[in-house]
Amino acid sequence: MTLPAEFARIERHFRPLAGPGSLDLTDDAAVFTPPPGRELVIAADAMVEGVHFLPEDPPGLVGRKLLRTNLSDLAAMGAAPLGYLMTVSVPKATPNAWFAAFAAGLALDQIEFGLTLLGGDTTSTPGPITLSLTIIGTVSPGHALRRNGARAGDGIWVTGTIGDGALGLLAATGQLADSTGYLADRYRLPQPRLRLVPHGIAHAAMDVSDGLVQDLGHLCRASGLSAVIHAESVPLSGAARLADRLELCLTGGDDYELLLAVPPAHEAALLDAARAARMQVTRIGHFVAGEAAVTVLDRDGVAMDFATGGWSHFA
Amino acid sequence: MTLPAEFARIERHFRPLAGPGSLDLTDDAAVFTPPPGRELVIAADAMVEGVHFLPEDPPGLVGRKLLRTNLSDLAAMGAAPLGYLMTVSVPKATPNAWFAAFAAGLALDQIEFGLTLLGGDTTSTPGPITLSLTIIGTVSPGHALRRNGARAGDGIWVTGTIGDGALGLLAATGQLADSTGYLADRYRLPQPRLRLVPHGIAHAAMDVSDGLVQDLGHLCRASGLSAVIHAESVPLSGAARLADRLELCLTGGDDYELLLAVPPAHEAALLDAARAARMQVTRIGHFVAGEAAVTVLDRDGVAMDFATGGWSHFA
Repeated sequence: MTLPAEFARIERHFRPLAGPGSLDLTDDAAVFTPPPGRELVIAADAMVEGVHFLPEDPPGLVGRKLLRTNLSDLAAMGAAPLGYLMTVSVPKATPNAWFAAFAAGLALDQIEFGLTLLGGDTTSTPGPITLSLTIIGTVSPGHALRRNGARAGDGIWVTGTIGDGALGLLAATGQLADSTGYLADRYRLPQPRLRLVPHGIAHAAMDVSDGLVQDLGHLCRASGLSAVIHAESVPLSGAARLADRLELCLTGGDDYELLLAVPPAHEAALLDAARAARMQVTRIGHFVAGEAAVTVLDRDGVAMDFATGGWSHFA
Repeated sequence: MTLPAEFARIERHFRPLAGPGSLDLTDDAAVFTPPPGRELVIAADAMVEGVHFLPEDPPGLVGRKLLRTNLSDLAAMGAAPLGYLMTVSVPKATPNAWFAAFAAGLALDQIEFGLTLLGGDTTSTPGPITLSLTIIGTVSPGHALRRNGARAGDGIWVTGTIGDGALGLLAATGQLADSTGYLADRYRLPQPRLRLVPHGIAHAAMDVSDGLVQDLGHLCRASGLSAVIHAESVPLSGAARLADRLELCLTGGDDYELLLAVPPAHEAALLDAARAARMQVTRIGHFVAGEAAVTVLDRDGVAMDFATGGWSHFA
């Protein structure tokens, strides 16, 4: 049931991460008083070695990616981070150095994003390292951004650049040149867009984690709309332009950018908010009435057809 | 990143489990208003196939055990269940029938214990099925039962019977006769002791999940006390008495009974509360001043020495 050194490891590596409410990780559960007058926003994501990260990825970056993919869910809801719980299943032979590096990465990001560890569990596994994190944030009542609020005529906007995560996986596995390491870094260390709080600006929001086209399809379904985007408008990094893999950029995962539905009347406010947050935002298309579908137009205005990764594969 | 049929599976098997705040599992996170005037109690536990459950265990019982081990943490804190998030990592070839049976088990226990699914994640894994559950409960402010409140002279009490879980694992793997299936059932389906709310009765509480001696050691460390228990007083089921494996009963895991520190003046109240909850409680020893240590006395009053599983192995 337990690792031989489970308790010593928790005390040594995880207790320094623990904050108010964690009871120093020595009790059966965390206890905390939710901030008065706030709603709680809570999400959970798992990461599996060999599926969501590579066996050779530095443990510190694995910890940060685990935290950041969950922080991206808070960003999508317009919520501020409060704390997290984490379960860590690792092979029995996992050295202390792995735990030390993993926790050091988390410690860095706890400071950067302003949250602390509340609790969790450490177990052994005969399989790949498997991590699960539950994140807790808060939002003013009624201010959580949903996927179901987009309206026909709203612009479709994204933060940052799209496709670097999928290209970064290719780069990190030696399948794509990446002389600066920019793409692999984008794969290993997502940038959750918490500084942009689009409440009062966007009608709907979500984060792009499973590929732009597929995730936009989810937003369309939730809002009962269709979407038209222009492939040429989708913002690509310099490295992604060089790679020249447009379809992969539009359908690949691991972007962790925000996807927003913004009415034309709010575009100026969005640009102001993005400027204040020092974040790039780009209008890539718009929502139209109709059965949930995503149409991607190429530079000639012709609808593109994707072999893989499109939302329709899951309809 | 995603299972081929991830979204259809979530919709089919997990959405029926979703309750208020879950946003039908279609958003990036759950949003809920914490009950006013209550503290939140939150814990997370992971379970790995081949470590915490057997590959041949029925999926419905696996789901219920996952939920119940977490409910046991709420019981230990004196908290009432509110909801849970869950991450499920399974091999790609996992059939729909597995998901259906797993969810049906959870549905049963959601009704029995009064909570609903708030959110989570489903991923593929090349390894064993790995499950993580974060449970959220509530408690009146200041009423959460801690491990650090025991005082010298308090009696040491346990609910139910001790050792059935560890014996049940032997029974379930064909290493111990179990003609009625009682022991294997105790291993596969813990009984979280939520109906006993020992606030105002116990000075300290925890659940016994890693073995009575080891867990009592944790309580001793948290409270800065030593413990003396009488092996003959530890309540054993009829099946456990037949098995005649006292050391395994005292040191084996998977009991999910409550361990309580109760002052003599509160013993009558404890017995009343246990009677009302139709639950067996047994005094097995008492706390004494001194450096954290657990002494187990045999029927002749001689301190027993354990080859495995004692708390001191982790000191």
